[in-house]
Amino acid sequence: MNVHRLALLLKKVKAGKVTIEEALGQLKSLPFEDLGFTRIDHHRSLRKGFPEVIWGEGKTAGEIVSILKQLKGKGQNILVTRLEEKKAISIQKAFPKSRYYSRSKVLTYLTHPVKISGKGMILVVTAGTTDIPVAEEAALTAQLMGNPVETLFDVGVAGIHRLLSEKKKLESARVLIVAAGMEGALPSVVAGLVDRPVIAVPTSVGYGTSFGGVTALLAMLNSCASGVAVVNIDNGFGAGYFASLLNRL
Amino acid sequence: MNVHRLALLLKKVKAGKVTIEEALGQLKSLPFEDLGFTRIDHHRSLRKGFPEVIWGEGKTAGEIVSILKQLKGKGQNILVTRLEEKKAISIQKAFPKSRYYSRSKVLTYLTHPVKISGKGMILVVTAGTTDIPVAEEAALTAQLMGNPVETLFDVGVAGIHRLLSEKKKLESARVLIVAAGMEGALPSVVAGLVDRPVIAVPTSVGYGTSFGGVTALLAMLNSCASGVAVVNIDNGFGAGYFASLLNRL
Amino acid sequence: MNVHRLALLLKKVKAGKVTIEEALGQLKSLPFEDLGFTRIDHHRSLRKGFPEVIWGEGKTAGEIVSILKQLKGKGQNILVTRLEEKKAISIQKAFPKSRYYSRSKVLTYLTHPVKISGKGMILVVTAGTTDIPVAEEAALTAQLMGNPVETLFDVGVAGIHRLLSEKKKLESARVLIVAAGMEGALPSVVAGLVDRPVIAVPTSVGYGTSFGGVTALLAMLNSCASGVAVVNIDNGFGAGYFASLLNRL
Amino acid sequence: MNVHRLALLLKKVKAGKVTIEEALGQLKSLPFEDLGFTRIDHHRSLRKGFPEVIWGEGKTAGEIVSILKQLKGKGQNILVTRLEEKKAISIQKAFPKSRYYSRSKVLTYLTHPVKISGKGMILVVTAGTTDIPVAEEAALTAQLMGNPVETLFDVGVAGIHRLLSEKKKLESARVLIVAAGMEGALPSVVAGLVDRPVIAVPTSVGYGTSFGGVTALLAMLNSCASGVAVVNIDNGFGAGYFASLLNRL
Amino acid sequence: MNVHRLALLLKKVKAGKVTIEEALGQLKSLPFEDLGFTRIDHHRSLRKGFPEVIWGEGKTAGEIVSILKQLKGKGQNILVTRLEEKKAISIQKAFPKSRYYSRSKVLTYLTHPVKISGKGMILVVTAGTTDIPVAEEAALTAQLMGNPVETLFDVGVAGIHRLLSEKKKLESARVLIVAAGMEGALPSVVAGLVDRPVIAVPTSVGYGTSFGGVTALLAMLNSCASGVAVVNIDNGFGAGYFASLLNRL
Amino acid sequence: MNVHRLALLLKKVKAGKVTIEEALGQLKSLPFEDLGFTRIDHHRSLRKGFPEVIWGEGKTAGEIVSILKQLKGKGQNILVTRLEEKKAISIQKAFPKSRYYSRSKVLTYLTHPVKISGKGMILVVTAGTTDIPVAEEAALTAQLMGNPVETLFDVGVAGIHRLLSEKKKLESARVLIVAAGMEGALPSVVAGLVDRPVIAVPTSVGYGTSFGGVTALLAMLNSCASGVAVVNIDNGFGAGYFASLLNRL
Amino acid sequence: MNVHRLALLLKKVKAGKVTIEEALGQLKSLPFEDLGFTRIDHHRSLRKGFPEVIWGEGKTAGEIVSILKQLKGKGQNILVTRLEEKKAISIQKAFPKSRYYSRSKVLTYLTHPVKISGKGMILVVTAGTTDIPVAEEAALTAQLMGNPVETLFDVGVAGIHRLLSEKKKLESARVLIVAAGMEGALPSVVAGLVDRPVIAVPTSVGYGTSFGGVTALLAMLNSCASGVAVVNIDNGFGAGYFASLLNRL
Amino acid sequence: MNVHRLALLLKKVKAGKVTIEEALGQLKSLPFEDLGFTRIDHHRSLRKGFPEVIWGEGKTAGEIVSILKQLKGKGQNILVTRLEEKKAISIQKAFPKSRYYSRSKVLTYLTHPVKISGKGMILVVTAGTTDIPVAEEAALTAQLMGNPVETLFDVGVAGIHRLLSEKKKLESARVLIVAAGMEGALPSVVAGLVDRPVIAVPTSVGYGTSFGGVTALLAMLNSCASGVAVVNIDNGFGAGYFASLLNRL
Repeated sequence: MNVHRLALLLKKVKAGKVTIEEALGQLKSLPFEDLGFTRIDHHRSLRKGFPEVIWGEGKTAGEIVSILKQLKGKGQNILVTRLEEKKAISIQKAFPKSRYYSRSKVLTYLTHPVKISGKGMILVVTAGTTDIPVAEEAALTAQLMGNPVETLFDVGVAGIHRLLSEKKKLESARVLIVAAGMEGALPSVVAGLVDRPVIAVPTSVGYGTSFGGVTALLAMLNSCASGVAVVNIDNGFGAGYFASLLNRL
Repeated sequence: MNVHRLALLLKKVKAGKVTIEEALGQLKSLPFEDLGFTRIDHHRSLRKGFPEVIWGEGKTAGEIVSILKQLKGKGQNILVTRLEEKKAISIQKAFPKSRYYSRSKVLTYLTHPVKISGKGMILVVTAGTTDIPVAEEAALTAQLMGNPVETLFDVGVAGIHRLLSEKKKLESARVLIVAAGMEGALPSVVAGLVDRPVIAVPTSVGYGTSFGGVTALLAMLNSCASGVAVVNIDNGFGAGYFASLLNRL
Repeated sequence: MNVHRLALLLKKVKAGKVTIEEALGQLKSLPFEDLGFTRIDHHRSLRKGFPEVIWGEGKTAGEIVSILKQLKGKGQNILVTRLEEKKAISIQKAFPKSRYYSRSKVLTYLTHPVKISGKGMILVVTAGTTDIPVAEEAALTAQLMGNPVETLFDVGVAGIHRLLSEKKKLESARVLIVAAGMEGALPSVVAGLVDRPVIAVPTSVGYGTSFGGVTALLAMLNSCASGVAVVNIDNGFGAGYFASLLNRL
Repeated sequence: MNVHRLALLLKKVKAGKVTIEEALGQLKSLPFEDLGFTRIDHHRSLRKGFPEVIWGEGKTAGEIVSILKQLKGKGQNILVTRLEEKKAISIQKAFPKSRYYSRSKVLTYLTHPVKISGKGMILVVTAGTTDIPVAEEAALTAQLMGNPVETLFDVGVAGIHRLLSEKKKLESARVLIVAAGMEGALPSVVAGLVDRPVIAVPTSVGYGTSFGGVTALLAMLNSCASGVAVVNIDNGFGAGYFASLLNRL
Repeated sequence: MNVHRLALLLKKVKAGKVTIEEALGQLKSLPFEDLGFTRIDHHRSLRKGFPEVIWGEGKTAGEIVSILKQLKGKGQNILVTRLEEKKAISIQKAFPKSRYYSRSKVLTYLTHPVKISGKGMILVVTAGTTDIPVAEEAALTAQLMGNPVETLFDVGVAGIHRLLSEKKKLESARVLIVAAGMEGALPSVVAGLVDRPVIAVPTSVGYGTSFGGVTALLAMLNSCASGVAVVNIDNGFGAGYFASLLNRL
Repeated sequence: MNVHRLALLLKKVKAGKVTIEEALGQLKSLPFEDLGFTRIDHHRSLRKGFPEVIWGEGKTAGEIVSILKQLKGKGQNILVTRLEEKKAISIQKAFPKSRYYSRSKVLTYLTHPVKISGKGMILVVTAGTTDIPVAEEAALTAQLMGNPVETLFDVGVAGIHRLLSEKKKLESARVLIVAAGMEGALPSVVAGLVDRPVIAVPTSVGYGTSFGGVTALLAMLNSCASGVAVVNIDNGFGAGYFASLLNRL
Repeated sequence: MNVHRLALLLKKVKAGKVTIEEALGQLKSLPFEDLGFTRIDHHRSLRKGFPEVIWGEGKTAGEIVSILKQLKGKGQNILVTRLEEKKAISIQKAFPKSRYYSRSKVLTYLTHPVKISGKGMILVVTAGTTDIPVAEEAALTAQLMGNPVETLFDVGVAGIHRLLSEKKKLESARVLIVAAGMEGALPSVVAGLVDRPVIAVPTSVGYGTSFGGVTALLAMLNSCASGVAVVNIDNGFGAGYFASLLNRL
Repeated sequence: MNVHRLALLLKKVKAGKVTIEEALGQLKSLPFEDLGFTRIDHHRSLRKGFPEVIWGEGKTAGEIVSILKQLKGKGQNILVTRLEEKKAISIQKAFPKSRYYSRSKVLTYLTHPVKISGKGMILVVTAGTTDIPVAEEAALTAQLMGNPVETLFDVGVAGIHRLLSEKKKLESARVLIVAAGMEGALPSVVAGLVDRPVIAVPTSVGYGTSFGGVTALLAMLNSCASGVAVVNIDNGFGAGYFASLLNRL
């Protein structure tokens, strides 16, 4: 039952064609969505200028192309994550203007320029160079969601002065995303240097007891610094999305 | 070497009493902190009107009383977390105006009224009644850090309509803290209903395979909803602090 | 907005006091529960003759007494689980007709005889005598939910003939609950002997690598026999409840 | 010793050709199965019109073809699970009427139409589209076991209204199977909406701390909703089989 | 149906009072145990001169006394394991001739002298002095099961010469039980020195990452020496029992 | 220093060519192995007619061929475990009389017939057909170590009568090896039926929460039946070796 | 057989009283320790002026007193670790000159002044104040083993400037011990600042996912800085001992 | 700001072109690294004659070649770790004088002979032959860092005499690195035989419950011998580096 049918029902009540009891019965049992919560039917991201996000893993290139065609018709900007290079190559044949970032396995397709809506700069920091793929996923997500994004890579805690020398950059950010694998210590140190929220992203960088990022995750959850919250291992997208929500506050 | 000594050195250079080479040598080796980063010497929270936070666990009542006396002299508001009731009773003898919250084991002592600096309302939500101690720690932290705080307790996913009926309250929050134990599903559902950041706090509520909150934590890290970040198990303080940072953005 | 207020609105529409547009606006934004889904407001168990269930852990004796008083007024049968003996003794002073089962830490209070609604017999089986507390919680739950319940204790797999000699009893059950700790093998064997659903309950019985029931749980999840589903460790209540749902099918 | 030989023995006793002592000796030591428990020799599923189930993993295409030939001779319907596509292609050359479902890696071969024996509808629900392979295995199993099966895919908790809008469908099921990966929250929500048993199937969908489905499994075992039981990760077959047992109650 | 009833049946068949068909029907459906497998009804240990074993954990002193009284009547030797000292004291009032070993929490009660049935000597070895409680449980079990038992304590691998100097003793054993906590390395070294089976018992001795004996257990399962098999953590009884089975071979 | 050199030294002492002090000095510092503990220099298995064992994993076909050539010269029987088929094919070109068992990835090469030294029969039992590779490794190991070996496959606990019907075979074994994956329950049941030692071998058969055999391992360690000891996951060789030690007792 | 007996044997050979064959037989079979490796019989620590170490956990006060009396007679310095305060009080009655450190639960008893044998200064660093008990155990161990020890407490990474301001102290150490709980990041940062070996000690400080020190341990094992090695959780003694070995190099 | 710019500033101060206040302002805010801490800008290893280390994993052959070219220009010795053979082959085309060690996947390129700076011999010990790849990485690292290195392979604890016969070699080392997989017992035994620091390296050698080296790691952390510290699983480089730091003490 949509708004039109609801209006019709009310008209019938007014006109006496439907008794109040009958109307009550219909209203009580009508499916929730029929009340016109269009927000339900239309994905939140569409309404807000957020890009449409496609999880590339487990979808064929063909399936992704067909989704892209639909979305292109709606004038959406599109972000495809976790997309293997082979699939990206096929997709780019159909969408030559799409752009593929092989490090982060992200493909973007812009139907219109991204409009900046974030209130400040989001800084994406990594401990090492091997954390960059995850960081890039975060940065691209935040960019497509309308944020100015800067990066600061390879400033891990083993050479703490590399980090300290970038203090001004750290302090100029409104929101920080810090990606680290191995012992995952960087978010603690960064959160001790700034007064802004730090979103910690553990990465699966490491070997042996790094346990595919679990060690970094645990370290981040146990940060001795206040002002840190954590997302799933390698979840650059989630960090970028969360940072974007913060940057609109 | 502090600023005065640095000035002295420069004066000596100017006066020719110290050669440039000698001055270079001293400057290259001077300890970092001597450059006058007074912000280091003074804890960030003091400068910003945040309350001073004391971790009550592992400190005796006597030790806490002596810390409180020092801080009282500085005109600080004070938050003591994880404080056993026995200790609280002794402390309250020395500080009768302090207030102890036995559910969350938090003691607060205000030397001046809290000044509201948060830009919106922070809503603290729980799945069950047994999650309230953690939620209360979060709420008290956020309040002392200058935020309007509201609560919404016992709206877990097994009775989803309890939650849905509070949609307006959920949407009126600027930042949300969601505490849940057991299967930890509530943050996902809440994040699907609002456009604001959700800080998920796993609680140690449950038995058997809840593993002291690990199950809830894992569920929250794997939230299928975007816009969720997570803190450590039972870390109400950390959630309240992080929410406060967000609410100042 | 409840049904009465909804009726009032419809009357006003009919009477022309409220325009259709105004009514539409109110209907679209009204909180879900105000549509009169009374089933939400009233716990499902009340409507179905199920007992009211109180989780005793973490509630004081006083709190439980006050809940019991409220429920008694509503004519409910009541089941309190995970209730320490000390609390039970205080409660029984206020409710002398309540009955406490110290092995399973369950207290029941009947305001009216349980009406049998289950279609067959629920059989509760244990591997050892130390599993009986969990089994008793399951059995009492199923009884209060209106099921004929029988038990078969201490028929673990180390002496398989004890089990085989009870084959008739096993086959006469409509639903089976099988509780076991240690290696948790009994549900597999039972499921191989009967054609009815087996609800496996791992118990925390054991030491060392029993890991508080985790080993039994894992074994049950990996049952080589079809027809087994599993609940949380020591979750006798959950097994009894699930069995009751099955026995009404 | 089968029934015929047993009869022969008794005849000899009657005829005095075998003494009672000799007969006693033979009877006491005779192998259990020789007493004529044909149910042992013939798999339960054969006797009940259940399909014969072949675990495809670890068997070669040739081995499966030879098993299929045997079973075909007995007029059995057959379900092959966990069958890689390559093997399926070879098998289909020998059994062109077999049907292969590549998403769920299931192959079915019907020698006669499935007879409906389930008393109601089994509804298979998934949180996301990536859970469909497991759900399809469950659905195909339940169908071959004689049940009307419907599906409801991609109604995860991050968009709770998608689920709520299907409330009628949920309520029309006699038994529900709910498959979810990641945080595994859907079974809890579904169980809160219906009064029927919910069989929860954790899937290995996710990354990082989803730990191949362990997180979803743990969440489901800790469901705050009553009326949920759980099977092994990705065990669509087990869920379908268990649901079929329930639907015959 | 026991042997007498079975004989009766056969007599009736012989006498023509029961037809062969009727006899067949009764025989086919008679409960397994009724065939006279008295070994089922009487616990194996009784028949073999093994002591009766009572698991003391979770039983009250009163319960144990009443079991002891029954067994005493049958002339059994008795072994009670995991018995807290408090309970032992009460039990010894009723059974003054029982003997309690406080280190291993074992109580023994002999109604007749233990008859030696083991073919050689069982040697119980420990890495440290803190492993002795578990070793003593093993030694007492093996002794009551009729084995000559010797011990060799505190010969851990950090001072390998302590062990090597006892080579003759090691080589004189027919079966070896080796208990160790912490890194659990001793069984590997012992198995490299002897040609007899080594039963490894991990103990919960240690702290931090000893994880209550899990580390020792894992080390033992991964022994680079052949000829090692493992029992549960702290399972001195199980090791003693298994060694006794071996020593009767 | 070998025995000959030692004899030479003693002769020199006797002849007065070496003083007692000089001899003492040499004897005190001589390397342990030089005392003629030939057992050290020659692997124990050589002296006892055990086959020589080569761990095939991580060695090239060429390396194994060259080891085989050396051992062949010494008249050894040889067992190669964990040998990939590809390597086996190359090896068999050089050693056409060797025999490769592809299920268990074992290659044997006999330079002389195996001499039976085991005192009874070793029975190798499996729960399912997928456990056979591990069981075959155990059986081949035991055979080459001089034991009569029988097998009993696919008698898992889900169809307990398959097992019970083989009671005689079970009881005729002197030592039993029981391999099982998934819930690992079979050793418990077998140990309840026989009075002989049961060596439990967890296999990595299963999926999801079988965790590569960890669930089966844990179940076996927690066996409620006495008389079970456990080896590492998939360690058929270790079980066969341990059984051989037992069968020589 | 000690040196004297060996000399006697040689004399007999020389004198012709023992044949060479007899002497060979005795020499080949003599127990290893009888060769006069007196270093084996006397604990290494005694010979080197190290204190004697007693593990206090699991020993009664009486037992410790009696050990202390023995050692006192030998003129040993003594270190008792993990000693509960209650026991310490009784011990101090017998040994009034002993000193008890309640934070670290260490008792020391000096029979002679500690002689400095370490070549440089050992610096013990902690992340927080709650790590001090473990650090103190390390420091006391190193002191009694003859090392100059300094401490630097509460310089965790959340306030990195506290650490940087102590750079000179860090650089003046020859060996560093760094204790940290929670995220365990401090050793990485310290190792990045100095060129000396860093011994990392995880402490059990923290809650929730600190898992009793496991998170800190994992972080330390995954240090991105070279020059870090790790000991067990809370193993202050082990760190102090290892540092002492290093400081004698 | 580098040293030259700093000198310029001081000259301007001296010349009166810049006031002391202005100079103070610049000095206080200048980036830390601009003070000329060349140790920051130039990696520590460069200044000390340590080789430059490149982590080969995750870099292409092309990337590594281009790094090598840069470093070659600086006259550095170079160590590339974790380098797949395929990449090594391409690299060796560009750098024919480089040397690749396929077992340890290490490539070295010497621009000048390694200068010995270690004060004693570093001994690298392994339990088995499969641990050699990790040991070789450690040995090569230590060699390039200027240490005399010896090795002792395949002396695991199952044949303890192999180890004991090498006692002199063990005692001649100044620092020991001990690599072991499976039960990881060797470091404990070695540390009991020598008075020098033992660096334990767990390797991922093993199967089943070796859990990729976790069992060996845990065993090493729980060593009953003092004088052992541990690095990450398979971290031969880290052990070699740590040993080198020790050997310079």
